[in-house]
Amino acid sequence: MTIIKFSRRAEGLTSSAIREILKLTEREEIISFAGGLPAAQTFPVQALQSACERLFADAPAAALQYAPTEGFQPLRQWIADRHGADVGNVLITTGSQQALDLLAKVFIDPGSKVLVEAPTYLGALQAFSLSEASYAEVPTDDHGLQPELLTEALAADARFLYTIPNFQNPTGRRLTLKRRLTLVARARELGLLLVEDNPYGELCYSNSPLPSLQSLNPSGVVYMGSFSKIMAPGLRLGYVIAPAEIHGKLVQAKQASDLHTPSFTQRLVYEVLKTGMLEGHLAAVCDLYGKHCSVMLDALSRHMPPGVRWTRPEGGMFIWVELPEHIDAMALLEEAVANNVAFVPGAPFYARNPRTNTMRLAFVTVIPDKIEEGIARLGSLIA
Amino acid sequence: MTIIKFSRRAEGLTSSAIREILKLTEREEIISFAGGLPAAQTFPVQALQSACERLFADAPAAALQYAPTEGFQPLRQWIADRHGADVGNVLITTGSQQALDLLAKVFIDPGSKVLVEAPTYLGALQAFSLSEASYAEVPTDDHGLQPELLTEALAADARFLYTIPNFQNPTGRRLTLKRRLTLVARARELGLLLVEDNPYGELCYSNSPLPSLQSLNPSGVVYMGSFSKIMAPGLRLGYVIAPAEIHGKLVQAKQASDLHTPSFTQRLVYEVLKTGMLEGHLAAVCDLYGKHCSVMLDALSRHMPPGVRWTRPEGGMFIWVELPEHIDAMALLEEAVANNVAFVPGAPFYARNPRTNTMRLAFVTVIPDKIEEGIARLGSLIA
Repeated sequence: MTIIKFSRRAEGLTSSAIREILKLTEREEIISFAGGLPAAQTFPVQALQSACERLFADAPAAALQYAPTEGFQPLRQWIADRHGADVGNVLITTGSQQALDLLAKVFIDPGSKVLVEAPTYLGALQAFSLSEASYAEVPTDDHGLQPELLTEALAADARFLYTIPNFQNPTGRRLTLKRRLTLVARARELGLLLVEDNPYGELCYSNSPLPSLQSLNPSGVVYMGSFSKIMAPGLRLGYVIAPAEIHGKLVQAKQASDLHTPSFTQRLVYEVLKTGMLEGHLAAVCDLYGKHCSVMLDALSRHMPPGVRWTRPEGGMFIWVELPEHIDAMALLEEAVANNVAFVPGAPFYARNPRTNTMRLAFVTVIPDKIEEGIARLGSLIA
Repeated sequence: MTIIKFSRRAEGLTSSAIREILKLTEREEIISFAGGLPAAQTFPVQALQSACERLFADAPAAALQYAPTEGFQPLRQWIADRHGADVGNVLITTGSQQALDLLAKVFIDPGSKVLVEAPTYLGALQAFSLSEASYAEVPTDDHGLQPELLTEALAADARFLYTIPNFQNPTGRRLTLKRRLTLVARARELGLLLVEDNPYGELCYSNSPLPSLQSLNPSGVVYMGSFSKIMAPGLRLGYVIAPAEIHGKLVQAKQASDLHTPSFTQRLVYEVLKTGMLEGHLAAVCDLYGKHCSVMLDALSRHMPPGVRWTRPEGGMFIWVELPEHIDAMALLEEAVANNVAFVPGAPFYARNPRTNTMRLAFVTVIPDKIEEGIARLGSLIA
């Protein structure tokens, strides 16, 4: 009999609630606000197809061979230029989920303290927990993380603070300019490293971008970006811009993790980017997502009973709903699925102190008529 | 000032010797036996190009959207069928390097004992070391790992034994059928889990395949396969076939590591495989690599001074050379590079007790005339 002895962290792995829910809600008849998927009709299929043809015409062997761990140089340069960074600080990752895994490897020992927003992105908690992080939560309000509550005691011995300043997953909130300045100043005072995750920043309907935390203090911030929401997630392309010392460790960790991100997909995306199509493409995506967001916000005002609150995002893919305290969103989900509508309960997004009366609604993949219908159903269930 | 506190394992990361050497040997004029790259002229470019066209014609959105962590179902099924396994036990990974990382996550706590061959694949040591494994070495001889030396003391508390039975990297050795049977029986007696890494098994020039360890004991062996050497490494596609309990943990670890392997490359490779081109393709690759191997073996017999020994592989990409005891291969490399020829010193392939008089020669990417010339230069340097 083979003796199977898992690692301590593997013993701690449990099936993700979201994952199990997503399985439930794949039925055609379900109106699902649960998935975190971008809308497939926004994928730049034509541009990718032409890029593919050029790639096979020009340099097929290089796109199929082993390649440097840091990533495809022209793609790194494009990213550096877009962010006013040095190409030497850019690392291409296999989706930004891998960036989370690499940061965990490079910074987290068993028991290391990591600061996160309450709530925060579930995938980040999964990545950090696999390195046995312990968590402290930074309080948030309607405008996101509250930097004035970032005390010395809270920050003491923390390896970093992980934050999603733009249209956060799960809340859709955006950190104000004033808070960005305060957060960066406070972190600098405390000697606290910031990890800024920005998959949604380009999905800004109001076209009013705010400066990244990294632009405010390049030596104190690790920046994570992604092509999943602005091009296509199935390509699994993300990136990290990090101070030199951290970049070097991330590259070594990545070499041990998957050698390098597929050369083929990196070159494909670069071929698309260099046509200059991104700005027009983003405008179209923002237009679509902004309309969907309005439809859901309208539907919420019409169908939600008193005592229900929700965020009003200016970008991204998610609305966060707070139900009256006595309603358990997990129990509500069971009823909702029985009524052919789905969402993600908010509790799993909390590292320590789950608020069970919360839920996340994704609005980008459901057509407007169905958004109206789904929210109406949810409204009557809650009432 | 931001305080950067790396994890203990990140502190332990050092730049890979091979990596630095590869940078040195990119110069045009160098005859390099150093790289572990497959020959680019074997990449099935036409087949991949047609596959790409079909993919864009048929299901572009699905190839670009988020997808299940386990991998693309038809590709998993193809792999299961080829190995006589159940599709439920197959997990697609972002190259087989990721499989090593996932195994490390699932099995290795800081200090956990892992058994490896002496020497073994450097990338495996990098992946396991990032999880702070400690190592014990199983002795090898000209026929690979010596299962009769796998004692109870050696196996005690080991999380698994990692082995490359076919045309091992770095030695090119293949485990005999008799040893496979002994190894599997011995591991079963000891309750020891085997991890079988098989990237080179299909590159068998003599067309005399031996049964996998997994086929001899499916419940006691985790099997790792790869498309890097039989199709193209830049696609980063590997897979793991594991007993159900282990498979489940690997899937969860993968979800936290990169969500899933790119849908696009998985579907691309499946499109190629389903045309049935693989067998003919493999025959052509084996023919080419077998010829290169013969050329290098001939050159070695003509140019190496007495006291030098080398392996005679029946497959794969590497020949292992043992120099007279007093020659340090690392010092030799410096002289060699000055003479425009390169190889990889053998020491980094040992987990514990490096033999500094060894080296690895890769023969598949250098044209026959240059193999002759490069080995002649090495021979005179050694003499």
